[in-house]
Amino acid sequence: MNIDISRAAAILRDGDGFLILTHRRPDGDTLGSAAALCSALRRLGKRAVLCPNSGITEKYAPFVSEYIGDDTSEYTIPVSVDIAGENLFPLGWQGHVELAIDHHPSNSGFASETLLWPDKAACGEIVLELIDLLCGGITSKEADLLYIAVSTDCGCFQYANTRADTFRSAAKLLESGADIQRLNKLLFRSVSPARLRLEGMIYSTLRSYRDNAINIAVITAEMIQKSGADGSDMDDIAALPGRIAGNVVSVTIKERTDGTSKVSLRSTDALDSSAICAIFGGGGHKMAAGCEMSCPPEEAAEKLLREIERAMG
Amino acid sequence: MNIDISRAAAILRDGDGFLILTHRRPDGDTLGSAAALCSALRRLGKRAVLCPNSGITEKYAPFVSEYIGDDTSEYTIPVSVDIAGENLFPLGWQGHVELAIDHHPSNSGFASETLLWPDKAACGEIVLELIDLLCGGITSKEADLLYIAVSTDCGCFQYANTRADTFRSAAKLLESGADIQRLNKLLFRSVSPARLRLEGMIYSTLRSYRDNAINIAVITAEMIQKSGADGSDMDDIAALPGRIAGNVVSVTIKERTDGTSKVSLRSTDALDSSAICAIFGGGGHKMAAGCEMSCPPEEAAEKLLREIERAMG
Repeated sequence: MNIDISRAAAILRDGDGFLILTHRRPDGDTLGSAAALCSALRRLGKRAVLCPNSGITEKYAPFVSEYIGDDTSEYTIPVSVDIAGENLFPLGWQGHVELAIDHHPSNSGFASETLLWPDKAACGEIVLELIDLLCGGITSKEADLLYIAVSTDCGCFQYANTRADTFRSAAKLLESGADIQRLNKLLFRSVSPARLRLEGMIYSTLRSYRDNAINIAVITAEMIQKSGADGSDMDDIAALPGRIAGNVVSVTIKERTDGTSKVSLRSTDALDSSAICAIFGGGGHKMAAGCEMSCPPEEAAEKLLREIERAMG
Repeated sequence: MNIDISRAAAILRDGDGFLILTHRRPDGDTLGSAAALCSALRRLGKRAVLCPNSGITEKYAPFVSEYIGDDTSEYTIPVSVDIAGENLFPLGWQGHVELAIDHHPSNSGFASETLLWPDKAACGEIVLELIDLLCGGITSKEADLLYIAVSTDCGCFQYANTRADTFRSAAKLLESGADIQRLNKLLFRSVSPARLRLEGMIYSTLRSYRDNAINIAVITAEMIQKSGADGSDMDDIAALPGRIAGNVVSVTIKERTDGTSKVSLRSTDALDSSAICAIFGGGGHKMAAGCEMSCPPEEAAEKLLREIERAMG
């Protein structure tokens, strides 16, 4: 059942012993929102913890670790934050959720009661209003956590989901003491030396076709090994070749250790990425799609270029 | 004389024939602010043009060219936008400015009347309020122009000058029809193939010392030539080596065609960049400084590293 914000506030005000759930492969929005909510509930004198989530990365761990519960058995009211469906519950957790707080239009309605605001760029914006209602304001620590939530979900105000309200949430978080300088540097600028080396290799070996409309990056297993990059260094790497002015479609081909190819396509709406990937058994969205190919990356690059040129006419 | 916004609006409402001045080496803020103001004045039935400025780059020309006057002799009321002092008048123009609209705390007071709001991240925010007062709202074209002004002056909400009001201005511009997707891509993501190749070379040859606290990029004349990069591809290139996580000070050394070195330092406040540059006859601010060295870049790198290590103790 969908509920409004006063009903959600009442559930939190009336209960005690909250187990806050974040989604699988947790990002800044689910973690920042959950930790801020946990902090606010504790300020109200409630017992509240975050359910352990094995997917928390190094980047976010320092912000949320103090809220994670060891023994969660006494926390009997599950509240999910930024979770669209039961298949996204943190690994190892199952049960029935009392209250879901979410912004995904696709939310499956798995919880008893759902506060769903699909117009928000980030779930953190909903939590911001909820804490405001519950506590009459947020602390600077909660402002930091919610700035992590909001800014990462809208790509620091550069993604298409950025709305006027997103900027207004940011204004409020800044006024509530969010240290946006430090957080922007950490979230959007700082990268590992291995990542920077890998970016260097990608930019140095990029191939451009049709007046830079098509840009293909091949990331060989050797490049990954030489750069020292690991999984956490590969975040959003498929966005890099599309930086070329005039880009219509960018292709990123990553060689797997077994010699096969993992392919990501990103395009403007002038080309259907998912249709190209479907030819090779993959799929996705019009402007972002992927496929897996059993051939080596050089061969994959040739095949993909041929199909893209055909589609562009 | 400093004036308030109603007096500034009165000057514009009562006059006719405005010559709008942008500053030398014009950036997004001066150009976007000037063009938006020109558009609004024309909506009020006024004659208004932008004074020609030889420094307008390719990136901004398409947005402002329609407002630039050929024969400016009939435009007798000079209004400056985002100009802090007379030494920054566009090349070839001299005269007395009636109204200055500016956000630089250092504004020298060169105009008869000055609307100075030093708390604003961008001059575009002042022009936004002024047009609102004059016309009761802005057009979507003016919203685009003012988004260019605001977003470029605060580094797309990542620079230290970003304030709650900056976000609020952005919210208003988005609601007034600014196409922030297209503009963000153009202003902050798209780069020339030559720039991307040069970034690749810089990242591939970066040297890091003291657990990545010191990062040095050497850009040789050969790298610039091989990449095909020209002046416009060098924008903010000194910011790149500082992306390494743990960076305290980054050094960018550009080899000049005569074999000498142009040096930029960027640091956190844990190190005084200007003190290091002063040793070599340069200067600047604590967190961003520069110097020129008569030796080749490799030798400059050694000398700078020695002084930085000494300063870090």
